[in-house]
Amino acid sequence: MNQRIMLRHGDGGLLTSNLIRDIFYKYFDNEILTGYQDSAIFQMEAGRLAFTTDSFVVKPIFFTGGDIGKLAVCGTVNDLTAAGAVPLYLSVGFVIEEGFEIEKLDLIASSMSNTCKKAGVKIVTGDTKVVEKGSADGIYINTSGIGKVHEFFNPRHITSGDEIILTGTVGEHGTAILLERYELGLKGDFTSDCNPISEIISVLGDDIKHVKLMRDPTRGGVANALCEISDSYNIGAIIEEEKLQIRPAVKSVHELLGTDPLYFACEGRMILVVEKGFGTKILNCINTLDDCQNSQIIGKFDDLYSKVCIRTWLGGERILTMLENQMISRIC
Amino acid sequence: MNQRIMLRHGDGGLLTSNLIRDIFYKYFDNEILTGYQDSAIFQMEAGRLAFTTDSFVVKPIFFTGGDIGKLAVCGTVNDLTAAGAVPLYLSVGFVIEEGFEIEKLDLIASSMSNTCKKAGVKIVTGDTKVVEKGSADGIYINTSGIGKVHEFFNPRHITSGDEIILTGTVGEHGTAILLERYELGLKGDFTSDCNPISEIISVLGDDIKHVKLMRDPTRGGVANALCEISDSYNIGAIIEEEKLQIRPAVKSVHELLGTDPLYFACEGRMILVVEKGFGTKILNCINTLDDCQNSQIIGKFDDLYSKVCIRTWLGGERILTMLENQMISRIC
Repeated sequence: MNQRIMLRHGDGGLLTSNLIRDIFYKYFDNEILTGYQDSAIFQMEAGRLAFTTDSFVVKPIFFTGGDIGKLAVCGTVNDLTAAGAVPLYLSVGFVIEEGFEIEKLDLIASSMSNTCKKAGVKIVTGDTKVVEKGSADGIYINTSGIGKVHEFFNPRHITSGDEIILTGTVGEHGTAILLERYELGLKGDFTSDCNPISEIISVLGDDIKHVKLMRDPTRGGVANALCEISDSYNIGAIIEEEKLQIRPAVKSVHELLGTDPLYFACEGRMILVVEKGFGTKILNCINTLDDCQNSQIIGKFDDLYSKVCIRTWLGGERILTMLENQMISRIC
Repeated sequence: MNQRIMLRHGDGGLLTSNLIRDIFYKYFDNEILTGYQDSAIFQMEAGRLAFTTDSFVVKPIFFTGGDIGKLAVCGTVNDLTAAGAVPLYLSVGFVIEEGFEIEKLDLIASSMSNTCKKAGVKIVTGDTKVVEKGSADGIYINTSGIGKVHEFFNPRHITSGDEIILTGTVGEHGTAILLERYELGLKGDFTSDCNPISEIISVLGDDIKHVKLMRDPTRGGVANALCEISDSYNIGAIIEEEKLQIRPAVKSVHELLGTDPLYFACEGRMILVVEKGFGTKILNCINTLDDCQNSQIIGKFDDLYSKVCIRTWLGGERILTMLENQMISRIC
C-alpha cells in the first residue's frame, strides 16, 4: 500500500467518501458516527457537561511511546478529566498535506481507535481537509470532546494550605519529542508518558468533592501550570523538590542541556489541588491506578508566598516563573 | 499594529496567555469561556444533543461576503442546524503560521464574534497552535459545536414522493472563491452566500416533524449532497431545473468556464427533505426568513428513478453523478 493523499481526497466527492469509508469508518465504527449526516446525535441526561478542544501539530508525528493520533485522543480526554468529567464523545478534524502516505493515516487512525477504547470514549463525528503540498507539515489533527462532569466536582477558590498532588513523573513527553526532533542519539528510556488518565474520575468517586481544581501539565509543563494557577487565584505555593519524580534518564538529559524538566510537557499526568487536610486521602485513591503509581503530594498553596517557589534538596528556595521562551515548539 | 505571530505565541507560556487575553477574550468574552481551565463547563437539560466538527482551510482567507472566521462559525452552526438542532456552544482551534499578521487575526476573531452574535451561539473553549513559516498557509481554523436537537425532529427513511426544498440560490460561495483565487477580474455580484441559517429551526417550530432530513450543500454543492442522500437511502430523485435559483452573474461565469454551479459550494443554504404532501406548508414557513426568501421546492425523491436526475428547461433529463473531480480545492 503505497498510495498517497491527493487534493481530491478533500473535495467532498467520491474519493472523500471512499477515504472516510476505508479508513475512518473501519477504525471508528459506531452507531452514532454512522447514524446521521454531518453531525452526531445522541441522548444526554440532565447535568453539567464539559466541552474542550485541542489542535495537534506535534513533530515528529511518530515518536517513542505514541504518535499524533494517540496524542490527539489523550490530550482531549485528559482535558475533560481535568474538568472533573467522564469523557464520552470526541470529534476529529484532519488537515492533511497532499502527498501524505495513506498507510501512515491508517496507522494514526488505528492508534486513535485503540486509545479511545482504553479511555472509554467514542469518535462520533469528523471532518477531513486536504491542502496542497507545502501548505502543512504532513498532518494536523483537531479533537474536541464532550464529557459529563461528576456531580460532586465543585471547582472553587484555592486557599492557603490546599495540597498539590502530581500523579507521576515529570517532563517525559516533552523530552521524548526534543530528543527525536533533533536526533540527539542519546541512549536511555525516553518514552513519552502520553496516556489517557480518565480513570481518575471513577477512582475518586464521591471524594472528588475534596478536589478544588485539576490541570494536566502539557505545554509549559508542571512549572507553567502551577504558575498559571497561582496567578489566577493570586496565591503563592511551595513545592518540595524531593517529592518530584524525575526519571534518571530524563534528569541526565536536562543536566546535559542545562534545561529544566519542570517546563517540559507531560501528556499523561494530572495536577490536583486538594482541600487542606485531604491530600493523603486523595493520594491513596489515585495511586491505586496503574498509570498513577508515582503520585506524590508535591507541595501546597501557601499565602506566605506570593509566587510559586520550590524548596531544593539543599534547603534553598527558588522562584518558578511563567515560561517565557520554550526551547522547543510543536510538542503537541 | 504591525506585529506578527511568533512561534512563542504557541508555546503555552507568557506570549500565549497575552494573545488569548488581548484577542480572543476581547472578542469571545463570556462567563463559560473564562470560567474554568482548559474546558468549558455548563449545565444542560436532558435531551438529544447534536455534535459536529469542521476544519477550515479556505484560500483566500478574506473574500467578498466573508472570511475564514465567519465561514468557520457558519459552517458548524449550519451543520448543527442540519441536525435539527439549535446551535448553542462552539469550540475554536487555531493553527497559525509563524509570521501571520496579528492585525489579520484580530479581524478574523472580530468577524467570528459578530457571526456568533447573529447565530446566537457562544465560543466557550479554544486552543492556539503556531507552526513554523512554511508549515501552514496563514491560518487554519477548526470549530466544533454542540446544539440541542428539537424534540419533534425525527430523521427517518426517505420514501417516494418526499419533497425537496432548497432555501436559496445556488453555488455562490464556491464561485466567489473561484473568482478571487484566480483573480479572474470578472465584473458582477459575486458575493459568497456565507451566512448562519440557524433560524430555520425556530421558524419551523413543531412542523419540523414533517422534515425527514436536512443537509447544507457545502463541498460538492447541491448536486453532490443530493447524490449522497440518494445513495444512502437507495432511492432516485427528480429535480426541476426551472426551480433552481441561480444568480445571472453566477450563471454567466459557469457558462463561460463550462462548469456546473450545482457542484459549487453554498455556505448559507439548506436542503430539506420533507414528508410527501407537506412541501408547501414547510416552504411557507421557511421563506418568511430574510435569508431564505428564494426557497423553492426543487423536486422530489421518486422510486421511478434510481439516480438523481434533473429535468432541463427543454424537457430532457440528465443524471447528476457524484462529484469525481472538483476543479477547485480549499473552498472551505
